[in-house]
Amino acid sequence: MEGVLIIGAGAAGSVTAQKCAMNRDVFKRVHLASRRLASCEAVAKRCVTPIEISQVDADNVAETVALINKVKPDLVINMALPYQDLAIMDACLETGVHYLDTANYEPRDVAKFEYSWQWKYQDRYKDKGIMAILGCGFDPGQSNIYCAYAQEFLFDTIETIDIIDCNDGSHGKAFATNFNPEINLREVTQRGKYWKDGKWIDIDPLSIATMIDYPEVGPRKSYLIYHEEEESLVENIKGLKQIRFWMTFSDNYIKHLEVLQNVGMTRIDPVMYKGNPVIPMEFLKELLPPPSSLGEGYTGRTSIGCIFTGKKDGKDKRAIIYNVCEHTQAYKETGAQAVSYTTGVPPVVGAMMVFKGAWKGAGVYNVEQLPSKPFMDEIGQHGLPWHTRELEDGEQSELFAVKT
Amino acid sequence: MEGVLIIGAGAAGSVTAQKCAMNRDVFKRVHLASRRLASCEAVAKRCVTPIEISQVDADNVAETVALINKVKPDLVINMALPYQDLAIMDACLETGVHYLDTANYEPRDVAKFEYSWQWKYQDRYKDKGIMAILGCGFDPGQSNIYCAYAQEFLFDTIETIDIIDCNDGSHGKAFATNFNPEINLREVTQRGKYWKDGKWIDIDPLSIATMIDYPEVGPRKSYLIYHEEEESLVENIKGLKQIRFWMTFSDNYIKHLEVLQNVGMTRIDPVMYKGNPVIPMEFLKELLPPPSSLGEGYTGRTSIGCIFTGKKDGKDKRAIIYNVCEHTQAYKETGAQAVSYTTGVPPVVGAMMVFKGAWKGAGVYNVEQLPSKPFMDEIGQHGLPWHTRELEDGEQSELFAVKT
Repeated sequence: MEGVLIIGAGAAGSVTAQKCAMNRDVFKRVHLASRRLASCEAVAKRCVTPIEISQVDADNVAETVALINKVKPDLVINMALPYQDLAIMDACLETGVHYLDTANYEPRDVAKFEYSWQWKYQDRYKDKGIMAILGCGFDPGQSNIYCAYAQEFLFDTIETIDIIDCNDGSHGKAFATNFNPEINLREVTQRGKYWKDGKWIDIDPLSIATMIDYPEVGPRKSYLIYHEEEESLVENIKGLKQIRFWMTFSDNYIKHLEVLQNVGMTRIDPVMYKGNPVIPMEFLKELLPPPSSLGEGYTGRTSIGCIFTGKKDGKDKRAIIYNVCEHTQAYKETGAQAVSYTTGVPPVVGAMMVFKGAWKGAGVYNVEQLPSKPFMDEIGQHGLPWHTRELEDGEQSELFAVKT
Repeated sequence: MEGVLIIGAGAAGSVTAQKCAMNRDVFKRVHLASRRLASCEAVAKRCVTPIEISQVDADNVAETVALINKVKPDLVINMALPYQDLAIMDACLETGVHYLDTANYEPRDVAKFEYSWQWKYQDRYKDKGIMAILGCGFDPGQSNIYCAYAQEFLFDTIETIDIIDCNDGSHGKAFATNFNPEINLREVTQRGKYWKDGKWIDIDPLSIATMIDYPEVGPRKSYLIYHEEEESLVENIKGLKQIRFWMTFSDNYIKHLEVLQNVGMTRIDPVMYKGNPVIPMEFLKELLPPPSSLGEGYTGRTSIGCIFTGKKDGKDKRAIIYNVCEHTQAYKETGAQAVSYTTGVPPVVGAMMVFKGAWKGAGVYNVEQLPSKPFMDEIGQHGLPWHTRELEDGEQSELFAVKT
């Protein structure tokens, strides 16, 4: 294997391309394609080794197939929009090329986060003898791999998982989202849910919150939201009794979100304006600062990890695995802030796993179904070192006290 | 005189048409025209006597001229958008018909509230022997007439005027504006200013606030904003030392406004969306509840008036003139809430003044330049009774204590 094709040149895709270009021992050929060639050109300029670029409309399967036939990659890293997952999976299937992405497919017209559409490709990918690796960003992605690693090496049985996601950074804007505003707001405005004792429990959006003590950050108010990796982890972590996902939002962010919802700006159905349909959420995206513009002057850090409870050698055990990423350091290296950086690096290491033969098979995989150790051994050298330790008595007491 | 043509069938225009239809002794012929014929039809159904209706694009002078030539009114009441004032004034000039409006002309592309454009019609209206009566809604309009009345009957010299505008109503929506959202938000988001000792003092938007004790409402937080009637009152109230305009906004309204500004939704420059220009403020208008939908279930009242200080018979005097209007009562009578009602009634009484010969002349007039007494004698019978009294010692102490 020698060639990788990255589709998508947004802030995270830029990080992915730059990291591939830093690892030419693995990726002999690196090709970046996106809807806007100018975006690819800007990324190519930042790369430490030369990469090739192309324009592509990833909604158009035939176009992507033609690009794959021209570029002849061994694997496609999909860093485009979640709406485009299926079209790119179709193109990979048609051309017999491995597929890897960082976020599950969503239909444009309904905010529905589930793997069902992509899991349906199982038999076709198996028959074709190629892999589709789903959700290999940070969360989902690194978070799933933390779980797989904890299951194999830290616990005999994992009983509960709390994925905790804190961006304690400051971008200095009145309001901005750290990744694609449309995807971010769709995620946050949906109803929440978590999984307990074999069933999903549905909650009002942002209706459960608590303080979580984030490593190297400190206690921050965090909201229970639904996040896509929970769906596959429930299937793949045996004996699990509960899984929840928590994310920090500042009061200012919540205020903006509330108002935008109140006035209808987060709607994803078209509203007529001078004879043309305008989707409010899409239009809002045009108004907000692009996430790629937030890198400069962004201070603070992200602190993301998984807190586990379970049994080891017959005794109760509580442990955490986490990564902390500095915005300024991510920006210095790649011109992107830490949220884009933490999303853009894991797919590179995931691709490496395939290229090095550590991840192999045929069919559709969520990353926790693949060997965690080779990934965990590699990721630290590429900018996302991880740490693990057992929790002390009373640590994360507020999190564990939440009645859910 | 026998015929009136009303252009504009929004919430306030609907009130104007209905009130004209209630006064057929004065208005023998009533014609309502608007961009959407369906709006006129809905208003006509509410009228207690039959009115005629037409479709017209008031931006198009030739179309309006043709309509005036068909309808042959003696006076046009302009209840359309402020952007359309000049086009309608042009049409009146061409056809030799009196003109009356409720809000000053604004260019679409810049939020600039001033009479300069309309005052330039002075010579042409004079030469044509017709009247253009500017700003005959509530404020401007009734507020200016309160000032003219106070100048003539209550004071020897007015030294300060505070126009106070409170909507203490509740429409039950998370966020809505009481009149055209676009016009409302343009007005509120502009820089503030007030006039003192011969000059205008510019302030940051909503940066000065105080508590004002509104008649029949009580103390409410009020913000100093610029309002167009100040420009003409400074010219026409002799000896004036200071004029300020205050409006209540709830914390919730301010919060929504702040967020909408932060994200760029109050911008009036075009933003490209899928190849088409979209003006955020105009698009926002499409999302918010139309003011005409706010009537049902609207509770509470408006309390709007003028507080004067000055001299009478060599002694200091402080007095207030005000109106209080109940939302439910306005809705019961006209299907519109009190903000639309208080705007829609004064132009009817203004038109009556012209029809009855109490207001006559040739040229462009702000309403305080016309006799106040016949208007004040009439307006109470049409739904907007007014009250006046001297202020007691210490009354409105917070308002008077504001250092501006």
